[in-house]
Amino acid sequence: MPMHVGGLQVYQQPEGATPDYVGTLYEQMSQVSEINPLFLKRPTRGLSTAGQWVWSRDDHFDLEYHFRHSALPRPGRVRELLELCSRLHGTRLARERPMWETHLIEGLDQGRLAMYTKVHHSLVDGISAMRLLQSALSTDPDERDVPPMWAARPTSESEPATDDAEQDGASVSLQALRSALGVTAEAAGLPAALIRTLKHGVLDETSAVSLYAPRTMFNTQITGSRRFAAQGWPIARLRAIGKASNTTINDVVLAMCSGAIRNYLIDHEALPDVSLVSMVPVGLNPSRSGSGSDGGGNALGVVMVRLGTDLSDPAARLSSIHRSMRTGKQALGSMSQLQITAMSALGLAPSILTPLLRMQGLARPPFNLVISNVPGPRKTMYLNGAKMLGTYPLSIPINGMALNITCNSYAENMDFGLTGCRRTVPHLQRLLGHLDDELAALENATGVS
Amino acid sequence: MPMHVGGLQVYQQPEGATPDYVGTLYEQMSQVSEINPLFLKRPTRGLSTAGQWVWSRDDHFDLEYHFRHSALPRPGRVRELLELCSRLHGTRLARERPMWETHLIEGLDQGRLAMYTKVHHSLVDGISAMRLLQSALSTDPDERDVPPMWAARPTSESEPATDDAEQDGASVSLQALRSALGVTAEAAGLPAALIRTLKHGVLDETSAVSLYAPRTMFNTQITGSRRFAAQGWPIARLRAIGKASNTTINDVVLAMCSGAIRNYLIDHEALPDVSLVSMVPVGLNPSRSGSGSDGGGNALGVVMVRLGTDLSDPAARLSSIHRSMRTGKQALGSMSQLQITAMSALGLAPSILTPLLRMQGLARPPFNLVISNVPGPRKTMYLNGAKMLGTYPLSIPINGMALNITCNSYAENMDFGLTGCRRTVPHLQRLLGHLDDELAALENATGVS
Repeated sequence: MPMHVGGLQVYQQPEGATPDYVGTLYEQMSQVSEINPLFLKRPTRGLSTAGQWVWSRDDHFDLEYHFRHSALPRPGRVRELLELCSRLHGTRLARERPMWETHLIEGLDQGRLAMYTKVHHSLVDGISAMRLLQSALSTDPDERDVPPMWAARPTSESEPATDDAEQDGASVSLQALRSALGVTAEAAGLPAALIRTLKHGVLDETSAVSLYAPRTMFNTQITGSRRFAAQGWPIARLRAIGKASNTTINDVVLAMCSGAIRNYLIDHEALPDVSLVSMVPVGLNPSRSGSGSDGGGNALGVVMVRLGTDLSDPAARLSSIHRSMRTGKQALGSMSQLQITAMSALGLAPSILTPLLRMQGLARPPFNLVISNVPGPRKTMYLNGAKMLGTYPLSIPINGMALNITCNSYAENMDFGLTGCRRTVPHLQRLLGHLDDELAALENATGVS
Repeated sequence: MPMHVGGLQVYQQPEGATPDYVGTLYEQMSQVSEINPLFLKRPTRGLSTAGQWVWSRDDHFDLEYHFRHSALPRPGRVRELLELCSRLHGTRLARERPMWETHLIEGLDQGRLAMYTKVHHSLVDGISAMRLLQSALSTDPDERDVPPMWAARPTSESEPATDDAEQDGASVSLQALRSALGVTAEAAGLPAALIRTLKHGVLDETSAVSLYAPRTMFNTQITGSRRFAAQGWPIARLRAIGKASNTTINDVVLAMCSGAIRNYLIDHEALPDVSLVSMVPVGLNPSRSGSGSDGGGNALGVVMVRLGTDLSDPAARLSSIHRSMRTGKQALGSMSQLQITAMSALGLAPSILTPLLRMQGLARPPFNLVISNVPGPRKTMYLNGAKMLGTYPLSIPINGMALNITCNSYAENMDFGLTGCRRTVPHLQRLLGHLDDELAALENATGVS
């Protein structure tokens, strides 16, 4: 199974750009005197490492292999772009090289261009990826000499600030969580002690933590090929709904997903009677974190949120999500760090954990999908003068979890990236229409519009 | 390691083609009412097959996944086309679906378009692939309704004739050989009896069969990524050299490869003192074949040809190749069918055979590369009115065999396809220049020009 995360950015070419604008930009981004060591790391194992995978430096680094110039067929709409990204996201990265690829894509209509990047999930988490991306952009539309993200940088350079205000209480990416816990999905197993605490970590909190997620069409065996869909909506619309209903922006994101998934499942005559449950990675109060000495940015937990897909009223769904999120966070507050870790680990490798859970009397992971949210840049960013119109995360569907929704904020928008197994989640792009409908329904239900 | 063969065809758009010509052609080729069963086969294994791989029919067939519309970035030269094909050829086919892909490629300069197809080698051999390709083309430039190769056909339809005249004594593709022997490289092993005969099959013919191939830069561990280069030359030029030197067209093909490889190795200061040896699959006299009841088309063997890369004179290389090929064929004539099979098997799975050979006292396969030759259409062919300008095979480099050269004849040209490991064979495209130089050198040496 492909185990990489990805990102798609769409840019507007600057005024007066010539037809070879993208080609010239590609050449410019290829001129790098020294490569950032992160982009030279490749996994190796052998006799000298006692058979363990370790990182080593690639001595035959070939930038042309990793950074590619691609094009869309006519008419070059977003549809053709998403089709190309689905394809690119469905192929595996080669272990024999540093595990990343960037495609600079020309041929998008309305004078736009796009960049798709994929990186093995063990190299970066969602938040680091967002920082890397920003490090190669500028808030100055006239700046032309920002080196690409794979260029080595002076170590003194400060990292661009992320939108910490938005992050308070908001969800964070599953990859950040995975990274914070130091667990990779390839890990052949988890420490026995962790496994033993799983039952307690989950079962002791029955009042607050969902233990029953219905079986759905998303929770089956998946294939390696992918379908990707992406769209952004103004944060102001989400904020207005939150204000009118006394809920958070993140609650509104979850409510949009809930309504969209409900309608998608109704279309497929596959809506279960009981609510779907989403795992939502959240930031923890730094004081709660054992490892929070670096400012708390890595203090992460997960909440199991009942999405209220069994409720037909949008306002009722939103209010149910708000309560579920609040009780989930209270439950986190009453749990030991070990319990938090154990519950969080559930989200990291369900395909590995499933047999273990079964031995503990749990038939399957207690959630149906993962919805996560990465804070992104608040200011409008530029790539060599090209204005970034949107940035959309592509994530990792895994066996038993065929759909993944990851969002990030950017400037005035909340950008959604939906990644699904091509076969298990047919017509994934219809979820975009349902998300749009649900946003309007929520505005209607809360009296905003 | 990717184990698929591929083909690249370049076409000239018909007069008056509009900018959406390729898009319209893509739509037309997607309208298929019934799929050819060969294109629905996918490998499966499980409890019901006792863990063995068997073919089953894909019940979720999704043509859009297999047939794709792609585009080249500007300026859309052959360079960009070869770069795209290198990339496409370096990714694996998913086992969970029928193992083939076709890309219809727009954006090639001079009003051209291209089609790249890859197919897992167990589905077709080189000759069958050529027939399939031709079945979807027409000799009539005005014909517009030939269904694509994946469309089901009336069973009574006769197969287009291949160029059997050219095939007499000419080499044939390694894939055809593999298929004829019923051996796949994935086979975990070969029958013990076959292994036992290897030593005899090879060692008994020391006078005619090369047993010593020097170690070269091509005979090392390879990576999964690919570099592809392709070019065609007029058969008339090769024929003139053959006539002047009393050699065959196939000898001239091998001499071109020999000189090109010699100069490439000199560039890399890596030319061994002794000649490189190529395995060349050849057609056998039907009367020799045990299984030749179907007209002899499947009666195949291999010859180990000394390429004469240690000789500085082009004419001397050609004459050495001619002698080596003749003695190799004579040796085949004196061998039992079992010996032929055993020796042929050497070429099929060196990575599996190497340890076995070592036990027999042979350090490595007795050849450095495979050069094969598939007869193609003699007439000019058209795809929906677009004239086929050339058709170039992409093959399978394997561990210890980093370079593969496959040729096919088409109309007036001999088209060469060179497939190499991207890392082990640097600057593969320079071999095209060396092939061109060598053809001129051979014309010069034989007094043709």
